[in-house]
Amino acid sequence: LKTYYDCIPCFIRQALEASRFATSDENIHEKVLRKVLLAVSDMDFSSSPPEMAQFIHRIIRKLLKNDDPYREVKEKYNLFALELYPELKKRIKRSSNPMETAVRLAIAGNIIDFGVFGDLKHEAVEDAIKNSLTDKFFGDIDKLFNEIFSAKKILYLGDNTGEIVMDRLLIEQMPMDRVTFVVRGGPVINDATIKDAQRTGMTDLVHVIDNGSDAPGTILKDCSDILKKHFHEADLVIAKGQGNYETLSEVHKNICFLLKAKCHVIARHIGCEVGSLVVGNTGR
Amino acid sequence: LKTYYDCIPCFIRQALEASRFATSDENIHEKVLRKVLLAVSDMDFSSSPPEMAQFIHRIIRKLLKNDDPYREVKEKYNLFALELYPELKKRIKRSSNPMETAVRLAIAGNIIDFGVFGDLKHEAVEDAIKNSLTDKFFGDIDKLFNEIFSAKKILYLGDNTGEIVMDRLLIEQMPMDRVTFVVRGGPVINDATIKDAQRTGMTDLVHVIDNGSDAPGTILKDCSDILKKHFHEADLVIAKGQGNYETLSEVHKNICFLLKAKCHVIARHIGCEVGSLVVGNTGR
Repeated sequence: LKTYYDCIPCFIRQALEASRFATSDENIHEKVLRKVLLAVSDMDFSSSPPEMAQFIHRIIRKLLKNDDPYREVKEKYNLFALELYPELKKRIKRSSNPMETAVRLAIAGNIIDFGVFGDLKHEAVEDAIKNSLTDKFFGDIDKLFNEIFSAKKILYLGDNTGEIVMDRLLIEQMPMDRVTFVVRGGPVINDATIKDAQRTGMTDLVHVIDNGSDAPGTILKDCSDILKKHFHEADLVIAKGQGNYETLSEVHKNICFLLKAKCHVIARHIGCEVGSLVVGNTGR
Repeated sequence: LKTYYDCIPCFIRQALEASRFATSDENIHEKVLRKVLLAVSDMDFSSSPPEMAQFIHRIIRKLLKNDDPYREVKEKYNLFALELYPELKKRIKRSSNPMETAVRLAIAGNIIDFGVFGDLKHEAVEDAIKNSLTDKFFGDIDKLFNEIFSAKKILYLGDNTGEIVMDRLLIEQMPMDRVTFVVRGGPVINDATIKDAQRTGMTDLVHVIDNGSDAPGTILKDCSDILKKHFHEADLVIAKGQGNYETLSEVHKNICFLLKAKCHVIARHIGCEVGSLVVGNTGR
């Protein structure tokens, strides 16, 4: 998926938000804003949004002299999701269809995306969870269940912090010995890295690798050889979130995208409404 | 009100939307986007949002070689509001407090703001009208009524096309011989100009002047001498919308702001929730 012009104002907003997460010094906010405006005015718009974001967030981190401006907000949302975990776990157990409930919750967790919602509140996450239990799926969820239980190797590409706890709930319903969970290779926006996989207990459950890249998506050519090997060998790739969709929607592979469509660009590309719970089986 | 950094992504979005209103040629969209990004990267952020927007929209119109990119959407919303007019007029007549209902509708009309909502739908206007009839006011509406009926000269600063029809409904409840209605001096975003005052029957009701400026607000030093004379002589200034608030909130004058708080920057400055119906009597 190429970058739409609509993504550009979003990148500018992200630059401002990242600065504010890092410091309260308004002079630095202004400096980052001006430099990013200037850089974007001259960027190649033909790459995907995560490629543009990778480049822009490297500039932001360098200007801020901060290798992880979202550190605190990431920890906050990991903790928040861990607090919700016991109740959500019970809800899955009590459910007449635990697997479906777990998929719904995993998609609800995708609301925790500071690339889209820079001022996300806990209440919004709770609302997303509540609504996800009754919202209609856009896509074929039964096909996903069949794939999960017939696949020998499942590669689960994670997305954000906080959300990773809801991924854990879903993975706990899956044949865990066949699952490898993937995090980003370095901090970018509020995406989950290896630290978050450790922090939220994911590393105690399944094999976890990082993809070697600091893009907020999965740009295969930018990823490590280990990631590429796992990707190649997997029967089923489960790809969480918009960033993974934007970078993998054209890749020839059996990928199931699980995401909440959070902006018009993505919703239009998928052909669904904004807010939809998307289970996108490419089936290739 | 100075420009907040939060306003910057909004200007970039406006540049894109203005281009799309003017042409379907994506090369032109890209050109406008890049030039505006570059211009904004080097602009003075200490002026008010309407001053920045005036400068940016001059650049946009020049690049588009189009002196009014919002022409069609302005006409569309004038027509839409004129279609609603008879029913709204009846609603005011039937109301137990026609003056209050008219104020509510005038504020509801302020939703028609393409500076904030570039993809506004007719349904959103209808919802705003419906909700405005029961929403609580933020401010002192009785003070406004007293001022209106005791003032000798009322200067009513209009804001947007479409919205101007709802202003007409309110003005029809006022002592019309004492009212002068003001439009912008030239096209900018979807703000109302003299053409729109003619188109919607405002010129048949009250004295209408243009302010001589193409800013989406009332920057007194940029306005004509006639506007300044009227402003000076008025006992009461009624100022519609965010742009007039942003440019006049610090001016020493008896001004009543009527607006729908549509973004966080304004809501925070006023101290209200986003979406509030604001009746802001400065009382100075």
